[in-house]
Amino acid sequence: MIERLAIVGVGLLGGSVAKAARAHGLAREIVGVGRDQARLRPAVTDGTLDRATTDLAEGLRGAERVILAATVLANETLLPAAWRAAAAGAIITDVGSTKRGIVAAATRLAPSRRDVQFVGSHPMAGSEKSGYAVSRADLFQNATVVVTPSELNDPAAVKSIGELWAGLGGRVVTLDPETHDRAVAAISHLPHVVAWALVDAVARFEPDAFAVAARGFKDTTRIAASDPDVWREILLGNRDAVVASLAAFRVALDELERLVARDDGAALTALLARLKAAREKLS
Amino acid sequence: MIERLAIVGVGLLGGSVAKAARAHGLAREIVGVGRDQARLRPAVTDGTLDRATTDLAEGLRGAERVILAATVLANETLLPAAWRAAAAGAIITDVGSTKRGIVAAATRLAPSRRDVQFVGSHPMAGSEKSGYAVSRADLFQNATVVVTPSELNDPAAVKSIGELWAGLGGRVVTLDPETHDRAVAAISHLPHVVAWALVDAVARFEPDAFAVAARGFKDTTRIAASDPDVWREILLGNRDAVVASLAAFRVALDELERLVARDDGAALTALLARLKAAREKLS
Repeated sequence: MIERLAIVGVGLLGGSVAKAARAHGLAREIVGVGRDQARLRPAVTDGTLDRATTDLAEGLRGAERVILAATVLANETLLPAAWRAAAAGAIITDVGSTKRGIVAAATRLAPSRRDVQFVGSHPMAGSEKSGYAVSRADLFQNATVVVTPSELNDPAAVKSIGELWAGLGGRVVTLDPETHDRAVAAISHLPHVVAWALVDAVARFEPDAFAVAARGFKDTTRIAASDPDVWREILLGNRDAVVASLAAFRVALDELERLVARDDGAALTALLARLKAAREKLS
Repeated sequence: MIERLAIVGVGLLGGSVAKAARAHGLAREIVGVGRDQARLRPAVTDGTLDRATTDLAEGLRGAERVILAATVLANETLLPAAWRAAAAGAIITDVGSTKRGIVAAATRLAPSRRDVQFVGSHPMAGSEKSGYAVSRADLFQNATVVVTPSELNDPAAVKSIGELWAGLGGRVVTLDPETHDRAVAAISHLPHVVAWALVDAVARFEPDAFAVAARGFKDTTRIAASDPDVWREILLGNRDAVVASLAAFRVALDELERLVARDDGAALTALLARLKAAREKLS
């Protein structure tokens, strides 16, 4: 049982952490920190938070665990102040979808206080929607949560952050920050760029086609409705891995197009069968 | 009420037509035609078909409506024999996902018999799965069904095919065959190629990333599990429109990549916001 859990940023992810922690009885007290008291109020009113504050130092006082659940850049910007305000022995984590940046920032802060740890986390749950209103207690149920320790981390701190996510319902996987960022470029950032390009391609090529869009198109482009501000940060924050994954995508697309353009049915069937098998391993 | 409905090819689509026609009481007798009597048996045993045959002429005898529900190429190959075997006054339609080819084939056959009509259809329902076992009575419920008349069609025949699909639960849209094929290239064929390229890109770039794939990746690539033989035919059958839509896609992808590579946050946010709005119009 965590005596006091502080959550900085009470939107979809932060709100869901709070609701899940409440539902699973993981914390005796849950404190929310945000920029705007009015926007924090619903989470206090509905009993998800015990209290809410716009003062980071007040929010972090006495908290054993701190979850930075603002955007990737905001979390990185907040980290030095959180480091200063954290209680002795506190373990700070985050929910950001890129990890090299914030782990490097924590590594720079480490010499200033050895009694605080940062262990990066990336819960791979989310939605194209954002905000506290869409948060829910089961968001992390069976979701993959990647924990990205650095060499500076005390193994006990890494373990306790893994236990926290497991307690919220997640399936914990450990990766180093660099491998994590390449993996999410491939599995998440690239598909977002591609989904946006697909929507744009239809608008350019045959805008009337939107009228006959069926489930396949809607599924493939669902993530194109993701939040532009969040995704600008994610894509620019993981720029080199995103650009490298796009290069791999172009090679793959070129091969498919070449077989179609050449009318090479046998090779096309073989390639589609191989890719179908690769996709089916996932589900 | 149709006195006799013949369905050629009793897989996912043909089986679903039969089940929906049964459920909605649209036909007094439903006859299935297939290549393999053993594979037709389950649909007779479960009462979906009144009878089944491997003989096209026997299956079409006396049928007012004929639905060609094999693959696109097989339907085109079967059409001349169906044209000869059809009852006087019969209206033939199909369920294929490209329409220029089969409508052109019907136009070539028209002089041989004026008492038979072909009106192309494309029900935009389906699945990455195939076969009678996955067919269902509600497959066309609220699905868009594109009907693609030619200038040779009797308006009454076009109307009755529209009514057939509406009776099966579909939302009927009329497009000429050329516009249809461009629209499905954009909305269906291009997304399939892109989904396959995405799976391939991950395998090439960071195969370990499959282990952390979350809902976004699974949704975006669900259609990569589609049947290779069916899709070879679809992609090659609509080759010029597919290649043209790919060119539009590359332009769209290049623009997104340029903004990421240049770190142009403001322009990237504006573009993502525009594409998010375009996507949100769909749901």
